[in-house]
Amino acid sequence: MTRRELLTSMSLLAGSRTARAGPRLEISAARLREQLESLSVYGRPAGGNFSNGVSRIGYSDADLAGRKYALGLVEAAHLKARIDAAGNIFVRKAGKDAALSPVLFGSHIDSVPNGGNFDGDLGSLAAIEILRVLGENGIVTRRPLEAVVWSCEEATFNGNTLNGSRAAAGKLRPGELDGISRGLTLFESMRRIGGDPARLDETQLRSGAFHAYLELHIEQGGTLDKEGTSIGIVEGIVALDHYDVVLTGMANHAGTTPMADRQDALVAAAQLTLVVRELVTEEPGRQVGTVGHLEVEPNASNVIAGRVRLSIDLRDLSTEKLQRLGEAIRARALAIAAQTKTQIVLTQTQHAETALASPEVQTVIQRAAEHLDLSYRRLPSGAVHDAQVMAAVGPMGMIFVPSEGGISHSPKELTGWEDCARGANVLLHSVLTISG
Amino acid sequence: MTRRELLTSMSLLAGSRTARAGPRLEISAARLREQLESLSVYGRPAGGNFSNGVSRIGYSDADLAGRKYALGLVEAAHLKARIDAAGNIFVRKAGKDAALSPVLFGSHIDSVPNGGNFDGDLGSLAAIEILRVLGENGIVTRRPLEAVVWSCEEATFNGNTLNGSRAAAGKLRPGELDGISRGLTLFESMRRIGGDPARLDETQLRSGAFHAYLELHIEQGGTLDKEGTSIGIVEGIVALDHYDVVLTGMANHAGTTPMADRQDALVAAAQLTLVVRELVTEEPGRQVGTVGHLEVEPNASNVIAGRVRLSIDLRDLSTEKLQRLGEAIRARALAIAAQTKTQIVLTQTQHAETALASPEVQTVIQRAAEHLDLSYRRLPSGAVHDAQVMAAVGPMGMIFVPSEGGISHSPKELTGWEDCARGANVLLHSVLTISG
Repeated sequence: MTRRELLTSMSLLAGSRTARAGPRLEISAARLREQLESLSVYGRPAGGNFSNGVSRIGYSDADLAGRKYALGLVEAAHLKARIDAAGNIFVRKAGKDAALSPVLFGSHIDSVPNGGNFDGDLGSLAAIEILRVLGENGIVTRRPLEAVVWSCEEATFNGNTLNGSRAAAGKLRPGELDGISRGLTLFESMRRIGGDPARLDETQLRSGAFHAYLELHIEQGGTLDKEGTSIGIVEGIVALDHYDVVLTGMANHAGTTPMADRQDALVAAAQLTLVVRELVTEEPGRQVGTVGHLEVEPNASNVIAGRVRLSIDLRDLSTEKLQRLGEAIRARALAIAAQTKTQIVLTQTQHAETALASPEVQTVIQRAAEHLDLSYRRLPSGAVHDAQVMAAVGPMGMIFVPSEGGISHSPKELTGWEDCARGANVLLHSVLTISG
Repeated sequence: MTRRELLTSMSLLAGSRTARAGPRLEISAARLREQLESLSVYGRPAGGNFSNGVSRIGYSDADLAGRKYALGLVEAAHLKARIDAAGNIFVRKAGKDAALSPVLFGSHIDSVPNGGNFDGDLGSLAAIEILRVLGENGIVTRRPLEAVVWSCEEATFNGNTLNGSRAAAGKLRPGELDGISRGLTLFESMRRIGGDPARLDETQLRSGAFHAYLELHIEQGGTLDKEGTSIGIVEGIVALDHYDVVLTGMANHAGTTPMADRQDALVAAAQLTLVVRELVTEEPGRQVGTVGHLEVEPNASNVIAGRVRLSIDLRDLSTEKLQRLGEAIRARALAIAAQTKTQIVLTQTQHAETALASPEVQTVIQRAAEHLDLSYRRLPSGAVHDAQVMAAVGPMGMIFVPSEGGISHSPKELTGWEDCARGANVLLHSVLTISG
């Protein structure tokens, strides 16, 4: 039904798209830039500047400060924010017909440790800016519009991603609210940012909660940048399997324990790290596999590692290939455990299915790019996004802008200010089209 | 000269050893046990018991609390403690001839993270107990006796070991006082425990500062335990080379960066970890090599590691073999860097020479074991000890007692209470012999 409504609004638009939005209505590129620069201060390393990136871990003090800044922008747009049970920030701009479901669009403002200033921030601040510029121009759409800033999108809570959007959509796994990171449970963390997780059931986004969900994001890959294309229209988001691996050996003295008697958990972890790379690269395809998190206990130079905990992150458009890779890694882990006299326990902690973007929303985005005379291409997303959670609730679409050198999750992450504005304008015109 | 004096005191003793010390003068085994159990509380994991071990990192709050406990034992023995410029605790019991240099004996009470309750603690508390039992029995030796608790023996300060004893002996390397660990420089850390590192030069232990240095310690290896031998007489302490390795790649998104384009610092670190094991084990001998400390940046499951820092610890009685191993590892590191498109910088941060125990002191220890009807054997020490620093100042000897299963630097570290008392009594009688 939602999809049929969407098709209707699109067909209405087909013959009259420039008339409806006015020629070249644009967000304020200068304001968007100034706001991205201002937000970057929260979580910036001491004494650093914009190019030193940001560590705005979800639910941290820096995250709280960044959210406060975003709430200030909402006020400046003469709008009111609502914090949902999971701590996500929603900002509604009323439409002409209050009975219609809203068009939802936004992103997140938390970052990985030592991350960049564009991943999430761009889509979040652009969403608020769009509401502001529509207000300034006295434009009221038929459907309500809703900007959203999802909480804790990045894998900084025990390797779990998309915490805010999954909580909003009722997709948290049993017990996940009790998981502890940085000394607080996820339940407590949500309360810390103003959420009320005891009420998650009540406020759950159910099918039909929105007419369509759109997200503007940097590509975080090198395709658009290499080609010189301005706009990426996302076809879908790859599936992701996440494993938490605990390797247990025996902590012992590095000087007195003969090499043959060792049960070195770090030697086993090193072998497993190389096995992940070997298995992922030995067959053709775009699949990727990463050990990005690794912790050693006791982690002293003169003690053989007694315990190592590490993460394995596998991604591909094929769920079946991911499963096969996971099984191959598990088999090799058993062999490593036997050879190194350690125990290795692999636990799959996350499985995100491939999430396809709505073809109709893809067409809307394409039309907006054409309207603004911008080059575009369709492409998959190798990165996880809140949009994939929303794809299970209603039609979803994503707009990508180029990342210089494909670098992301790094202080070196960089998207040109012109590209930021272009993406925000494509989002603006897509939203206008869909909201009618 | 010190050595000649020592020989003289030994030859004096040869015909009259039992007469001098009285038959079977012993420390209080019950008190030593009670004190080791009491000390174990400081740095114990929350909610744990004695078998959960201890994290009493040098200069930490737990270390401060443990030192305070040790100072209480000094008071209970009616003696006074002196804190030297490096924060080491010295306790002197006057001898009959104040002009003579003292017999020095002791150990340390700091631990590795998640360490055990015997490494260092036994030798330190036994030293104070010996002064106490001599006082209680009204025994005054010819030479002054001095018990010492060295500060921060373990490699918890940037991988550097033996901080207190090296500082006392004037063996810190240039700039080492400025090194930072846990937010404080070594200079500040020494001040934190009551030292005055600006005065290190003044108070330096120079040749002749003591007549002999003795240290009682658990073996931290499995030789005595396997054989059922009570006492180990240490022949020497193996040489140690320590390297600090920084591997720099490029932090990037784990989902969007193709495997072929990665500069993964953790993949490089895994290769290097396995190379250390391979090179160390490929030739015969007792040499050991360990990567025990490893830190990943940014250490998030969805980010390719941009930077890894790890430690390499190499030990053998042959300094030449260690140098050769270090060079082979360096050459392989260059090849790994080229293959993984990373930078690898190896810096040798420590080189401890082989330290031989004084043959005369070894003989004294053997006689004490014979006097107490204990089985004994000679053996090398694979572990680093403050004794090796003292070996450069004057004659040194070490007494080992068995470690169950050879386990050490682990909460599972265990030495039977009888073995603790036996070792303390061998130390007592060795000290009595040497002090005359």
